Amino acid sequence: MHTIDELQDKVKELFENRSYMGTPNELYEPIQYSLSQGGKRLRPLLCLMSCSLFGGDLKEVENSAIGLEIFHNFTLLHDDIMDQSPIRRGMPSVFNKWDTNTAILSGDTMFVIAYEYVTNTNPDILVDTLLAFNQTAKEVCEGQQYDMNFESEQNTDISDYMEMIRLKTAVLIAAAMKIGAIAARAQKEDLDKIYDFGILIGLAFQLRDDYLDAFGNVDIFGKAIGNDILTNKKTFLYLKAYENADLKTKEALDNAFTTNDPKLKVESVLKLYHSLGIESLTRSKIIELHDQALIILNDINRPESEKAEINNFLRHLIKREV
Amino acid sequence: MHTIDELQDKVKELFENRSYMGTPNELYEPIQYSLSQGGKRLRPLLCLMSCSLFGGDLKEVENSAIGLEIFHNFTLLHDDIMDQSPIRRGMPSVFNKWDTNTAILSGDTMFVIAYEYVTNTNPDILVDTLLAFNQTAKEVCEGQQYDMNFESEQNTDISDYMEMIRLKTAVLIAAAMKIGAIAARAQKEDLDKIYDFGILIGLAFQLRDDYLDAFGNVDIFGKAIGNDILTNKKTFLYLKAYENADLKTKEALDNAFTTNDPKLKVESVLKLYHSLGIESLTRSKIIELHDQALIILNDINRPESEKAEINNFLRHLIKREV
Repeated sequence: MHTIDELQDKVKELFENRSYMGTPNELYEPIQYSLSQGGKRLRPLLCLMSCSLFGGDLKEVENSAIGLEIFHNFTLLHDDIMDQSPIRRGMPSVFNKWDTNTAILSGDTMFVIAYEYVTNTNPDILVDTLLAFNQTAKEVCEGQQYDMNFESEQNTDISDYMEMIRLKTAVLIAAAMKIGAIAARAQKEDLDKIYDFGILIGLAFQLRDDYLDAFGNVDIFGKAIGNDILTNKKTFLYLKAYENADLKTKEALDNAFTTNDPKLKVESVLKLYHSLGIESLTRSKIIELHDQALIILNDINRPESEKAEINNFLRHLIKREV
Repeated sequence: MHTIDELQDKVKELFENRSYMGTPNELYEPIQYSLSQGGKRLRPLLCLMSCSLFGGDLKEVENSAIGLEIFHNFTLLHDDIMDQSPIRRGMPSVFNKWDTNTAILSGDTMFVIAYEYVTNTNPDILVDTLLAFNQTAKEVCEGQQYDMNFESEQNTDISDYMEMIRLKTAVLIAAAMKIGAIAARAQKEDLDKIYDFGILIGLAFQLRDDYLDAFGNVDIFGKAIGNDILTNKKTFLYLKAYENADLKTKEALDNAFTTNDPKLKVESVLKLYHSLGIESLTRSKIIELHDQALIILNDINRPESEKAEINNFLRHLIKREV
């Protein structure tokens, strides 16, 4: 198996200097802009990692790995319109820099380009790769719809939330790993295991993102702290706080979330999160998900050293400290 | 070969009572709404027709035919947002009935469903089918971008327009026919011929649509007459009028197109179109395209009676009277 550093170099190489330009320029320039911004390239990395774990040839999965990243970026273009998010990776989002129509149509085109890459796969694994990709693409749309529904729903609970982030975030991470394993011609049983592993890692990763939005360091997080609080987003933290609050604290949460002054609002909510132990409850949940993922990883019949390498990377990703 | 009536029955059967529902309901209801409205189902019909012409088994191409229609409807959902068109097939468009976010996300989901159908194709023809589909999907996006660019461009001419409608409309019709021929395992040479035939028919079909918008009968056309005139859309008619007008008539066209009163505007423009012979010039161009298409069809080595059946249908489609 390749080391994580080798895989990260490989991912870098895959995207470095890749051009997405074409005509008309107005259509392709936002695509080039979006895909040149970098980001973690987590999905292609996990895709290559899984292929490597199962002893596959990375060349067999490179195009799918690129396609998965382009698909992910396509969803960001459209999500940013729907959520009216002006900033993405510290830069103006596409709909903000250009306009809504541009973000719709350049996004659609990115979706086709993603399929072009995924289609450019060895024919003997094409059907399985496409079935995994199609199912995931549909579920990601379903997740975004649930996310939008949550805004107007009153009775959202943690289990609804976990299902929403499973669809919106975790399935694509899981599919990236499954597609890597398909390219390595892994057994059906192993495909299912690495997929389930990816789901748990994806959930932990999203909770880590929720956590950092409230308790992170702006320099590391790359986004403003407290954005979820300012937009009253029903995150794990928000739902856990309401779940654990007594009547009086619920009222205090209501008051905090309706505060007009942004600075005061974030402070008030964070103080209540602190008093309710939300920071450690969230970390516990992340550790629980990671532990469940490890049980599955242990059950995969591959060399211990290689599984340990993957696990080390993931510990780092979700910043597990215990 | 099947008769056109048999093929039309087959298309009807493919879409009748087909459910696209799923959860969450908010995502799938607009998809069901869009795909239940009917429309001409021209692309699946031409796809089956081409498969039949080359002696193929229709079962081999049914899923792609369905996928092509779903893809077409996906583009309508997004185009209607971009063009702010409130009405589609005499009903409120999805963005108008629901909202922009719904039309974006349900549209994206339809795109995935289209790929699900196309993927569900015999593996030995899957790669060729997908290559044709991917290329076309990208070109349709490019066509829509050119269409939007035209609104703000001053120097659009007829050749720009023909290239725009080639991408926006004709390539999907051509791809439908090519995919039908792929399913019939037609020779590479025949795939190219039926594709080129489809391009010419697609162009003629779009010019017929432009023509009907100005000179049609509202009951037959199913849309309000003069909509292109009211929105100053740079159609073949518009561009031909400016191309053929002397300075004085150009000024009259400018005045007519800036008239505020809608009824008067349509009347003034139509009067100028009449004086410039636009009706017959457009019909001549449609006939020219159809004649070019016939030359290609004649060159395909299939029984004359079968080619005549296709040609009769297309004469009817573009209402060629001479």
